[in-house]
This record gives sequence, C-alpha cells and structure tokens, in this order.
Amino acid sequence: MNNFMDDDFLLDTETARMLYHTYASQLPIIDYHCHIDAKEIAEDKRYENITQLWLGADHYKWRAMRSCGISERLITGDASDYEKFEAFCSAMPYLIGNPLYHWSHLELKRYFGFEGVLSPETCYDVWELTKEKLQSPEMSARGIMKMSNVKLICTTNDPSESLEHHIAIREDKDFDISVLPAFRPDKCLYVERDGFAKYIKDFSTAAGVEIKDFKTLCEVLANRIQYFNVLGCRASDHSLEDSVVFDVSVSAGQAESIADIVFKKAMAGEGIDSDTARIYRSALMRFLAKQYTKYGWVMQLHFGAMRNVSPMMFSLLGADAGYDTIHAGSGRIASLASMLGALEAESALPRTILYSLNPAENTAVAALVGCFQRTGEELEGLSCMPKMQQGSAWWFNDNIDGMRAQLTTFANQSALGKFIGMTTDSRSFLSYTRHEYFRRIFCSVLGGYVERGEYPLDVDTLAQMVCDVCYNNTKDYFDFRVI
Amino acid sequence: MNNFMDDDFLLDTETARMLYHTYASQLPIIDYHCHIDAKEIAEDKRYENITQLWLGADHYKWRAMRSCGISERLITGDASDYEKFEAFCSAMPYLIGNPLYHWSHLELKRYFGFEGVLSPETCYDVWELTKEKLQSPEMSARGIMKMSNVKLICTTNDPSESLEHHIAIREDKDFDISVLPAFRPDKCLYVERDGFAKYIKDFSTAAGVEIKDFKTLCEVLANRIQYFNVLGCRASDHSLEDSVVFDVSVSAGQAESIADIVFKKAMAGEGIDSDTARIYRSALMRFLAKQYTKYGWVMQLHFGAMRNVSPMMFSLLGADAGYDTIHAGSGRIASLASMLGALEAESALPRTILYSLNPAENTAVAALVGCFQRTGEELEGLSCMPKMQQGSAWWFNDNIDGMRAQLTTFANQSALGKFIGMTTDSRSFLSYTRHEYFRRIFCSVLGGYVERGEYPLDVDTLAQMVCDVCYNNTKDYFDFRVI
Amino acid sequence: MNNFMDDDFLLDTETARMLYHTYASQLPIIDYHCHIDAKEIAEDKRYENITQLWLGADHYKWRAMRSCGISERLITGDASDYEKFEAFCSAMPYLIGNPLYHWSHLELKRYFGFEGVLSPETCYDVWELTKEKLQSPEMSARGIMKMSNVKLICTTNDPSESLEHHIAIREDKDFDISVLPAFRPDKCLYVERDGFAKYIKDFSTAAGVEIKDFKTLCEVLANRIQYFNVLGCRASDHSLEDSVVFDVSVSAGQAESIADIVFKKAMAGEGIDSDTARIYRSALMRFLAKQYTKYGWVMQLHFGAMRNVSPMMFSLLGADAGYDTIHAGSGRIASLASMLGALEAESALPRTILYSLNPAENTAVAALVGCFQRTGEELEGLSCMPKMQQGSAWWFNDNIDGMRAQLTTFANQSALGKFIGMTTDSRSFLSYTRHEYFRRIFCSVLGGYVERGEYPLDVDTLAQMVCDVCYNNTKDYFDFRVI
Repeated sequence: MNNFMDDDFLLDTETARMLYHTYASQLPIIDYHCHIDAKEIAEDKRYENITQLWLGADHYKWRAMRSCGISERLITGDASDYEKFEAFCSAMPYLIGNPLYHWSHLELKRYFGFEGVLSPETCYDVWELTKEKLQSPEMSARGIMKMSNVKLICTTNDPSESLEHHIAIREDKDFDISVLPAFRPDKCLYVERDGFAKYIKDFSTAAGVEIKDFKTLCEVLANRIQYFNVLGCRASDHSLEDSVVFDVSVSAGQAESIADIVFKKAMAGEGIDSDTARIYRSALMRFLAKQYTKYGWVMQLHFGAMRNVSPMMFSLLGADAGYDTIHAGSGRIASLASMLGALEAESALPRTILYSLNPAENTAVAALVGCFQRTGEELEGLSCMPKMQQGSAWWFNDNIDGMRAQLTTFANQSALGKFIGMTTDSRSFLSYTRHEYFRRIFCSVLGGYVERGEYPLDVDTLAQMVCDVCYNNTKDYFDFRVI
Repeated sequence: MNNFMDDDFLLDTETARMLYHTYASQLPIIDYHCHIDAKEIAEDKRYENITQLWLGADHYKWRAMRSCGISERLITGDASDYEKFEAFCSAMPYLIGNPLYHWSHLELKRYFGFEGVLSPETCYDVWELTKEKLQSPEMSARGIMKMSNVKLICTTNDPSESLEHHIAIREDKDFDISVLPAFRPDKCLYVERDGFAKYIKDFSTAAGVEIKDFKTLCEVLANRIQYFNVLGCRASDHSLEDSVVFDVSVSAGQAESIADIVFKKAMAGEGIDSDTARIYRSALMRFLAKQYTKYGWVMQLHFGAMRNVSPMMFSLLGADAGYDTIHAGSGRIASLASMLGALEAESALPRTILYSLNPAENTAVAALVGCFQRTGEELEGLSCMPKMQQGSAWWFNDNIDGMRAQLTTFANQSALGKFIGMTTDSRSFLSYTRHEYFRRIFCSVLGGYVERGEYPLDVDTLAQMVCDVCYNNTKDYFDFRVI
Repeated sequence: MNNFMDDDFLLDTETARMLYHTYASQLPIIDYHCHIDAKEIAEDKRYENITQLWLGADHYKWRAMRSCGISERLITGDASDYEKFEAFCSAMPYLIGNPLYHWSHLELKRYFGFEGVLSPETCYDVWELTKEKLQSPEMSARGIMKMSNVKLICTTNDPSESLEHHIAIREDKDFDISVLPAFRPDKCLYVERDGFAKYIKDFSTAAGVEIKDFKTLCEVLANRIQYFNVLGCRASDHSLEDSVVFDVSVSAGQAESIADIVFKKAMAGEGIDSDTARIYRSALMRFLAKQYTKYGWVMQLHFGAMRNVSPMMFSLLGADAGYDTIHAGSGRIASLASMLGALEAESALPRTILYSLNPAENTAVAALVGCFQRTGEELEGLSCMPKMQQGSAWWFNDNIDGMRAQLTTFANQSALGKFIGMTTDSRSFLSYTRHEYFRRIFCSVLGGYVERGEYPLDVDTLAQMVCDVCYNNTKDYFDFRVI
C-alpha cells in the first residue's frame, strides 16, 4: 500500500524509483508543443488567485466539472472566482482515476507546497494558501517557468502573427528560456469553412500583400515560413479534422490548378464541397511540406478530433470550451499513408510526428510511422534520430493508461529508446508537472521491463535512455540549440 | 495464490476487500435494463431443472457450447434436458477466462449452495442438487428476486404492449419489488425492414387507431409514452444497428414530410433505401426524444450490434439465438454526435446513456458523453447527476477485462463517482449475481487506485462512492421511487 | 526482480512455471503457417554467418533498424555482412519492450548457447561464436528443425508451383519432418492489379492449359487443389487487403457471368474498377471455398494489411521489405460476415481461421468467429474442434502485449481450451523459438487465471489444456497425420 502521491508516486519498482530519482527528475524540460500565449511571458503575467490560473481557460477542468453535474454558472458563468474554485473542489472526490486529480495535486505540491488532499473540506485553506503564494515574486509566468527548469518551449502561431512578443522575449537578456514560435496554418487549409475569405483578407493586410490567388498564398506562406525560421521556429503543426484527410490521386500540377479555382471561389463567397476542398488542402500541404523540408522543420500532424460537437454550446461559449471529442473514423490512416508516400516520392517529406486522438489507432499509427523512416541517403552513421515519430499520448489520452498504452505500443512497434517523449499541449504555466507525470510513468514502464526480466538491469544504458527520451531526443530531433 | 472463487473473489487488495464486504455486498439491486418477461414474474414462474433455467434461452451459453464444437442437437435440438446440461458441463473446463465460467459458479453458489467445480465429473450431482432445490418454495421467479435483494427492475417493452402483467404485479400487495416497463420502439424506427407494415397494422389494432401516416404514428406513440409513464416507466431504449445511424442534415420540417412519404411507401409494400430510411428514422427519433424529455425519461442508445449474421441459422432458429456480433463500423460516432447536437439545440435532449458494443470505441464514447453534459439552465446546485452516461460494459464486454476497461476509460474521461453502474441486460432470474461480479470488479478498481497511491485512503469518501455507483446514482439518475 | 530472460522468463506465477516446465516445454511443434522456402529444406541449406540467417530477408529487423535511424546502406545496402550485424547490434539497446529483443536473445540462447546480452559491446564475440557454431553439422536447415522438435510445417505456395521440393522432402526417408504445401491463390483473386494477365499466362504454361476464361481458371484451380491435396496440403491462405473485401449482393450465377467478363477484360489489358473486381473476387472465393470444403481443408483469411505504402521504397526494394502497415478500415468486418454467411448457406464454409492485423478489431473478430461455429449436422459428439478460429496474434501483434490481448479476448468471447495456438508466419528457421515465447505467455495467462482464483488449480485439466492449445488442437483441427 503506497501513500497518496508521495515521492514514489507511480514508481512501482525499485528500478523505476532509481531511474526517476537519480536521473529523470534532474533533467530540464523542453516543451515542444504548447498553446501558451507568448504575450503572457513577455509581460511576465501574474495571477491573483488559483481560479484565474486553473479555471480561466482550462476546458479539461470544465468538462470534469460538467461531468459532475455542476451548473455552468459555476464553470464559465458569472459566479465569483471563489465560488468557481469551490465548485471545482466539490468535483474533486468524484474524479478518482482521472488525470486531473493527479495534475491538480502535483501542481499544488510543486508550486504551492500543499501536501494535503484537495476537497470541499480543504477548499478554503487552499484558496488562501495559493492566494498568498501567488503574491510572491517568483510566482509569475517567467518565475514558474524557471522554477520548473524549462529550457525551451514552442508556442503555436498563425502564419499572420507578427511574433512581436517572441522578439521581445528573445531580446530580453534577463530571461534565458527560449520561446520559439511554431507554424500552424490551419486557417489557410480549411478552404471550405466559414470565415476563410475573411481570414485571407486579414492575412493579406498583415502580410502587406493582396492574396488573390493560390500562387500568391503559397508565396506569402513561404515568406512567413522564412520569417518564422529566422525567429528560431523548428516546427509546424496541423490539425487534420476531416475523416478522409487527403486526396493525392490527382497529379501535383493538376491539383494546383484546381486549388487556384477553389481558392478564388471561396474568396468570392461560394460554397466548397468536401471533395474539392480535399484536393485544395492536399495541394497546399504538398507545398508547405516542401518548405518544411527545406528548413529542416518538423511537421506535426494532429488528427482524430471532432470539434465543437455541441452547436448550442459553441454558440454560447465559442471554440475550445470543452465540446470537442474523438472522431472514430477510419479512412484516415489510409489517406495519411497516401499523402506521406506522395511527399516522400517528391523528396518533400520532412521529419514528421503523427498524433492520433483515437487510442484505438495506436498500433496502426505506430506501424505507419515505421514505413517512412529515414532512407539512408541522408545520413551515414549508426543510430541517428529516426525521421518519423508517433506523438506522445495526446489530449484525451494524456493519462496513466493512455501514456502507458502509447509507450508500450511504441516499444512493440518501434524503438522506445528513440522516442522524443512528452509535450504538454497546454495553455497553463503550471502544466510542466505533466512532464514529471510522464517521466514517472516512463520510468515505471522501463522498470517493469527490467524487473520482469525482459531487459537487462544495465544501469548505464537505462540511465542514458531516460536522459534521451526525457530530453536529448527532443533536442536532437528538432535540432534545438539549447545546452 | 487465491482459492477458486472464494469470498475474496476478484478482491485483490485490502481496500477492495474492505469496500466490498462492508459496503457493496450489503446494497440492494436496481436492474435498470433487462429482458425479463413480466409475465414470468406475474405468474411467479417455477423451473423443473437447471436446463430450463440456464439453457432454455441463454444464447451466451449456446455460443460457448458451439465454440467447444458441441452438436446443435445438444444445444437447441431435441436432446433431453439432462443431455443438454451434460453437454454444457462438458464445455465448462474449456471456458477458462470466460465470464460464463464465473457466472455459472456464482449462481450455483448463491442460489444452490454448491461450492464445488462444475465439470463433467460433478454434472450428475449438480443436476440432482439443483433439481431438489428448485422444488423449495423460495426458488420461484419472485423468490429468487427477493433472495437477490432486488428493489426494482425495468423490463423492455414494445410500444404496442398492454403491460397487463406490469399492472398485475403493481397491484399485488404481497410483492414489493417494482417491475417497471421500458419503452423500446425499434420496430417503429426500422421502416426499411421486412415486417414493418405488418407490425404497424398490429400496432394499429392494439392501439385502436389506424396508423395511416407519420403524424398518426407520432400521436399514437405519444399516447403510448404517456401510458407507459403512468405505469412508472422511466426509460426508453433503442437499438441502433445501422453503420451511419442518423441524418440530421435536412431540416426538422422537411424531414417530417419525407418521413410521411417514406412511411406510406413502406405501408404500401414498397422497398425503402437506406438513405431515406435514415431520414425517416432521424425524424421519428427527434419526435420521440422530445417526448422523453417532457417526461424526464432516460434515453438508452445501444449501438454497434450486427444481428443474425448467419442467415442459415436465422432461418432455423430465428433471432436471439447467438448469431449476433460486433459491427466495427465507424461513421457511427460522428452520426451520433450530430443527432445529439441537433436534439440539444431543440431542447429535446433527454438524459441519455450511450452503450457501444465495440470496445475499441470505449474512449470515443466516453469523450462524446462529455460534450453533452447538463448546461446549467436546469439546475443550480453543486454536483447533481450529470445528464449523459456511458453505459456499463455491454454484452460481449460484460466480462472482467471489459468491465475494467469501461470503468477505467470512464474514470479517465469523466467522473467515475458519478457513474450509474451495472445493469444485467439479461433474460434470466439468476443473473443478479452479475451485480455481485460488477461490484467486486468495481471495488477492485477503486482499491487499485488507492493502494497504488493514486487516490487517498479516505474510507468515508470511498464508501460513499461505492454506495453511489452501485445503487444511489441509478436511483437518482432515473428518479426511481424506491427506498 | 527476475533475472534477464532466465529459465522462468515470462513465467510470473508458480502455476505458470509448473505448466511450462513440466508440460509446454516438452511438446513438439507444428508450424501450420510459415513462409519458409521448401527448397532450402530440400537442399538442407547452410549459413555462413549470423547476418545471412538474421538480416538477409527479415523485414521485421529492417524496420527496427530504420526506427533507430540507421542508414539503409547498413540494412539492405552494400555494406559487408559484419557491418550489417554491427548496425543491428547498435540498434539493440533501443529495442526495450520490442519482441525482436526477446526473439534475438532466445535464438542466441537456444541455437548458439549465448547467454549474454547482445549489444555493441558483445557484437564481435557473438559474430565469432555464431560463425563457428554455424559450421557444426547440425546447424543446417534440417538440423535446426530437428533441434527445435518440429514435427510438421506448412509452407505457403502459389497454385502454379510444381512443389518439386515438397516431393523431394517427402521421398527422403532420412528426414521425417512433414513439410506440406499450403495453397495461396492471391494472384488469381486480385484481377485489378498490374501483372494479373502476365501471371495468368505463366500459370497457363505451368498448368499446361490455356486459361482463357473464368471457367477454365476455376477448373485449373480445382486441379491444382487436387494436386496440392495429394501432397498432403490441408490449408489454403488468403490475404484480403481491400477495405471492403467482398460483395455477395449479386447472385452466385450472375457473379460468375460478371467474373467471366472481368477476367477477359483484365486479360485484354483493360483496367478493372474496384467494385467490379470485388464481385469477381467474391465469385472466385465462393468457388474456392467449395473446393476447400470438399477436401476438408482449412481456409485462412489474413486481413487488415496495407502493402507497400512507401512507393519510393517499393521501387527500390520491391515487396516484403518492411513497408507494410495496418489498414484501420472498418467496412471489412461487415463484408466478411456477409461472405461467411453466404458460404455457409451454400454448404461451402470450410473450417476457417480469421486473422486481423488491426488489434482494435480483436473483440469484433472473436465475436464474428462465434457466429459460424459448427452447426450440428456434421458431428454428433461432445466437444470436437470448433469450425471457426481467431488466428493467433499476427505480425505487428506478435509480441507479449499482442499475444496476451488475443488470448484474453479469445477467452472472453470463446473457449480458450479450443484454441489452435501459435504459428510463426516466418521466413526463418530460427523462429521456432517463437513457439517457446507463445507457450511461456500462454502458461502465464493460465497461471494468472488460476492464481487470481478465477479457475481451479486442477493440474490434470490445466496440463491437458496446455497440451491441447500448444499441440493437439492444431493436429486435430487441420487433421494432420503426425504422432
């Protein structure tokens, strides 16, 4: 019987404990995909209370509260900050087995020194404790990042962004954590959606060029990619939400002609059907992948989400309010395979990370990844970082079972020692504890293999693997310039 | 090393044993979805031998016997009752890891006091023992229900049923277990199937109204819903067997017009294609959901079954003979999401339970459920029962692994403490032991969280959770009037 | 803490250890599906070094090396044999949790007596040790088979093959291991593929009959089936790679007419669309299944693979080079169910094994299998081998987690004691250790059931089950004539 979330939390073997305490816990953090707003770092944002930190934008917590039947007024409504925190505390006891239960306690422990159990009984004390601590100098955006031993993060940015805050952070000699942009051109790719024409017009203004056809769009994007690259960008990110994502059955040249027609139609306010949109999207994707390849960027493909499935709540709260779910469709994997094959044939397949939101696809994704690894013309050595990665357990899978499933699937189908490890995908500065969560689980998985006699107890090799998967592989794979 | 199915069966931690023995085992049973025939309760049916009880209609056991290569003559054929029991006993040793192995022994232990191992060696003794016991007064339908500490069950009933047996049971002052009907209008929804016109004619007769168009059908169904409600009905149930279940792309008004045309075509014996049938079905579903909402009923959606896949055996044995399987299709989740979104937008989304037969959809279903929880206009308090539920592990999943998977998925994606728990979906009076099976597994899951240090050992909270998930939540969610 | 891969490797309970050491480890091997070339047995092939044995054709190892970022030159390129082995050794440490890690060490232990850890440090010693051992008389193809206690294997053969090597082996009185052909007519079924016409022409030459229409094709195939049968063939094998595999919506007669037209079109070099190809394929499948039924053969259906998804690497290395993956499509299960139902209705459903490459389909496949078990007209006894089987964990699933998943799914849905157990699907003579791997896992699964109190500790019954699943069931199911 273990104590509740003590130092050996999740470390279920002696090997796991040794690997975590001696190695994993000491490593700095690279968070290569998150949704933190660079402005908050530039301005070194501070928070008045735990509700602002925890419940202001975290739709994971909102969902959990709704799953406990809590009134929306206490979640996103006009209730006071204290009432909202009280409501969250009232949900806590029901969340047995939910990652939020662990994340919340880890954050309270690591950042606020609270070692108790968060519940309706401790609600007031925790409110007071956190309020007081938040006034201390180190509890600002930057302070929390430093305290968390973060070395580098990648934010998520639209191509039209000026990146002024990234520049400001970069130029600030007093802050040595790298805050790099990542390139997310989703709004350019979903030509069939409402708001496309409006977006392109705004983008034209931002870019100082009238984007009047597909060719100009590509040129402007190429310029923005160059600009992002100058500011240290090493990765793009795409959300692939369609069931059958791509169509590479038409030739590249033909696809570009169709894309141009589609683009102009959309700008003229005409509706675009999903088949044509797919050809447009595939043409643009091919163009973008070539650019990513040119700059040695990593291309991240996030797929399997269905967004805003409650139209009613979308009209009330907008996007990212906890109304997204898993698309359990299936044409996807075959469609992705075709696109990857087409890119590879054009020497335009960049390093790529595939993340599926559907855990039932874990093995299929891990197997697909194995079909597009580096092909030898690039490097001559033994054992570099492989070209393709299966992303860490994402969103609905970011829990003990989901992470263990992703890790063991990856181990079965690929080489776990070459995995690039964890990223938070988070909007919160307190989420760095999820790296601790991951590292504990990872050490537990390794310890399990060793203690069951499935891998030798070779401490040097295991320690190296811990350092690689929790830090070095990420650095090498993205080619980040950090110590 | 544990003894075979002793008192601590499935209780693998001290916490699990404490929770089960002190709390879970004491709770009464509400079985909110089953296929027991109310007539058998009204008449207080008795059984001559174990074959009548076990092998008369249980297609789970039939499948298991067939999986052992046993001749159909000994399963559904003209063999004697003893021969059939003997054949089942001959299958037993092969069923290691199968839930039938546990269910059979639990039933023999709890109802017949048999503590041995059922096998070809013990076949004759068990036959004799059970035969003798079945003659005792308490071994009738009602006696077994009382002995099982059942408080309330919901049967499954066609809208055309008179519910005479439910009335008889209700009026019988000597029997205080509630036997409520549940409303299952599948035959009204599958307009494209053979037998639809015949069914509607019979339904017209039963209802005393000629159902000549879609509007009349809706009116008659509304009347029947009112009638079911008067008899205490709290739930409807739908089997959604199509791959893409719904189509809400046409407006509600238009869908009703199409539905009327389709209805008349079907009544005239014309074939209905699956796309049109889907529009009809969606229109009727929207109407029904409004009624369920009006009466505060729970809407149960069972999906992912493919029925009667052996045409040969269907022609020999008819439906429900063990020839159904899992439909691994995938358009389903997106289609369901659209329907739930449309209902919600029309203020016609009742409390809803989603059951998928395909365990690969567990996480997708749990995530979908999270998108339609109560929205705050309804209730103001902290922590009521949430609107949506993922149903307990259903049919092919009703085993240790399937239940653990459903519970841990639900815990990861939702709030396990708000789960409504087990129902048997069974045709047999002995199946109440499956609540024991569930409770043991549930306590094992809770105990695991606690003993691994993932949740505090707070006995009061845990005990409350056990009582909630095994009894109170069901009562509250359906708003059943039981003590 | 267990030692690395010692005698009790994977045997995590006392019951498992007893069952494995006393029973499972003593049993001979029947490998009913593999890709070994009979010629290599006929010629009693020898190997110069470990690279020839391990890295000459094993695309599992190639994928693993690519997943470590190793240059293709060191995998399939012009590097020396020693360089290639060195590259493989450099990958080893990263392969924690990968079945290759275990297979490699099992093979080194059992065939070469190497008890250490394969790594860059031991690379040279292992190279020298294996080179020396490979010179000993018993380390030939036949020697390894004898050493492995193999009784019978089934190779995989095109209908056009002469089977001369099978005949030679059969007639060799000094070699008493049965090497039977298995019938794999894939090239006849995929009428829409490039090379179909060329294949049919070559087949005509081999058969000495001009195959000019569908009817002749059927006749020639019937003759070849008879010929294979004479040489002891007991099984066919089909790779079903389409997403929706079959179409049995047209009548058998009509389908044959369409098939004839399609065949002639394909022979004339015209393109065939996928819908028509499906009708052709279904017609031919129905014909073949009738033949298999006639001879009492087992029909193996392997589905869920997507082949050669990297067009670039296909053009460089051809097929079977490690560029196949899992097709996560879903129309498949319904389509298969229709075909099985149609065959059954025509009394043409042979004993059938279903293997899915997608582990997310495990439960759906196990449930489908349960719908077509023997129907009683065939045999009268208790407990024969059932007609349908879910195949053992295949290819990407052939690892500890995949095997445990397949075994427990099968146990939950069917009768584990009636499972036909392991086959290697391998091209290598050293792969017989995978039977050891399977047997250890199987004993661990059984031991788990027993020690958790879910099955009685009845040694006789358990021992019988081990002998059945690891040997007898295969023998009985295929009706192999071995001791």
